[in-house]
Amino acid sequence: MKKIINDPADILDEMLEGLAFAYEDLVERLPETTVIHRKVDHNDKVALVSGGGSGHEPAHAGFVGKGMLSAAVCGEVFTSPTPDQIFEAIKASDEGHGVFLIIKNYSGDVMNFDMAKDLAEMEDIPVEFVIVDDDVAVEDSTYTAGKRGIAGTVLVHKILGGAAEQGLTLAEVKELADKLIPNIKSIGVALKAATVPEVGKPGFELADDEIEFGVGIHGEPGYRREKIKPSKELAKELIERLKEEFQWKNGDQYAVLVNGMGGTPLMEQFVFMNDVRNLLAEEGLHIDFRKVGDYMTSIDMQGLSLTLVKLEDSRWLDYLNAPVTTISW
Amino acid sequence: MKKIINDPADILDEMLEGLAFAYEDLVERLPETTVIHRKVDHNDKVALVSGGGSGHEPAHAGFVGKGMLSAAVCGEVFTSPTPDQIFEAIKASDEGHGVFLIIKNYSGDVMNFDMAKDLAEMEDIPVEFVIVDDDVAVEDSTYTAGKRGIAGTVLVHKILGGAAEQGLTLAEVKELADKLIPNIKSIGVALKAATVPEVGKPGFELADDEIEFGVGIHGEPGYRREKIKPSKELAKELIERLKEEFQWKNGDQYAVLVNGMGGTPLMEQFVFMNDVRNLLAEEGLHIDFRKVGDYMTSIDMQGLSLTLVKLEDSRWLDYLNAPVTTISW
Repeated sequence: MKKIINDPADILDEMLEGLAFAYEDLVERLPETTVIHRKVDHNDKVALVSGGGSGHEPAHAGFVGKGMLSAAVCGEVFTSPTPDQIFEAIKASDEGHGVFLIIKNYSGDVMNFDMAKDLAEMEDIPVEFVIVDDDVAVEDSTYTAGKRGIAGTVLVHKILGGAAEQGLTLAEVKELADKLIPNIKSIGVALKAATVPEVGKPGFELADDEIEFGVGIHGEPGYRREKIKPSKELAKELIERLKEEFQWKNGDQYAVLVNGMGGTPLMEQFVFMNDVRNLLAEEGLHIDFRKVGDYMTSIDMQGLSLTLVKLEDSRWLDYLNAPVTTISW
Repeated sequence: MKKIINDPADILDEMLEGLAFAYEDLVERLPETTVIHRKVDHNDKVALVSGGGSGHEPAHAGFVGKGMLSAAVCGEVFTSPTPDQIFEAIKASDEGHGVFLIIKNYSGDVMNFDMAKDLAEMEDIPVEFVIVDDDVAVEDSTYTAGKRGIAGTVLVHKILGGAAEQGLTLAEVKELADKLIPNIKSIGVALKAATVPEVGKPGFELADDEIEFGVGIHGEPGYRREKIKPSKELAKELIERLKEEFQWKNGDQYAVLVNGMGGTPLMEQFVFMNDVRNLLAEEGLHIDFRKVGDYMTSIDMQGLSLTLVKLEDSRWLDYLNAPVTTISW
């Protein structure tokens, strides 16, 4: 393992210090916590809090700022943050209008965010939440009952962030989130597994000419391995899986995110986006919002995921396009 | 080689199509060219044009937009763009106040941008330029006489972009650029070489526990190979080399860029930034501007570079902080 780190046990602390220093105009690390909080004057609105294990940078701390998250709770690498840390984030974020939690569907996250919600409610902070399970690749997985939450989570941050910034109440944000989640679906392909620093070797092995469809962002197994194919064939496979789920029809409006997993150059992501564009045009879809880059990574995994959002409500597009002040959106 | 591409010969074209589609609100590809041009109403100012071989994404197209570049000329992978393409970018960008070229110091780029300058002057478009040679690692290199231009180029885009946006004349931008260049210095370290798609294998080999200091962004040789070390020791080596060059003193003001080479996760870049912070604090420097991420990559190279700018003039900091509308700043 070659990584630019010191003691693997210190990565979370050192990463948070480096991030808070680099972007001290935008965010701060709450003292003696693993919470990154935005530096924005309280503005009398519902606050959004997300988080999870580290290793998915820029998620979630990169999306803390005006118009998106109030705080991100950062666990150790690929490990859920503890309830007390999540509770700290909730307390720091509440502006008297309640806190909305955006949770990726991993058993540890779901349990710990739920416990933090209970702690907050004991202190009379109203809390609602949504569980993101956008990955259509497999049902049930290493750390998940049901479907996993992956890159679509970042679009949930953005859409709900836009809504909260517009002044929606906690109940209205919850209603929007519940409508949104079934309309966000993702699927990915991996070329090479991530190496967790504390482990020191890749989480699984793929042959030099082999890829795996549907791998999770912690290296959870996908649904098929085969030889590497051209980008346009990879795009076709992922789009066909998403089509089965959405059952779209000509003229439907969608948003698209091509998300790099950490070790995939932008060059490849743009080539893939070009193939996605051509295939979705053949399907007759209107693509009203697009984004390409590393948003929800898996340390140094090579691969990418494709997320589509069916824009059922025109306000969702407004929320996607609304300006924000964050490190990484 | 496992990459998400189609025919390697089509990468440039497909990448530009994907990029122009993904960010069609911000940029356009000039028809039948490899030029990415910003979609901004002409605003009666000096225009900045940069470019070079592809494989360094998001440089340079990611920095096209209001407040930075008017256009980026994109060559084939690691290959200088041709004079006619650069000339197209100049013609499309000129708003009657002349065009300023930002050129990385590679022999092919210098020659082709110079030829394009001649073509433009024959059509009465005033053109000035600066050659960026921020890499202090080695004198003369595979494709360069003198020092190479690397990640500091992105800060040149930003500072000169801020100046042009303020309405400086072409001569004033030139004067600023000439003052700025000696105050921008970079140096990098590589853990793993990039694989050029047309070549199909890494440009050089490093052992599983080996790193190389001073590698260029096309894999040009550095100045020393040795065993991998902790991040804080890597940071110490790079800072010591920069200190020799700058001869700084207590209280000097600097900007810092930690730049990932394409295959290095943000996690490691933030850990490294934390070490840089601690070491520069020991030196007594004031760090007034900071940035971390992939800005000038080398396809999938693992490694990073450190750039420091001595903020000789307080306006440089204003230009760095000025808002812009680009894909990747």
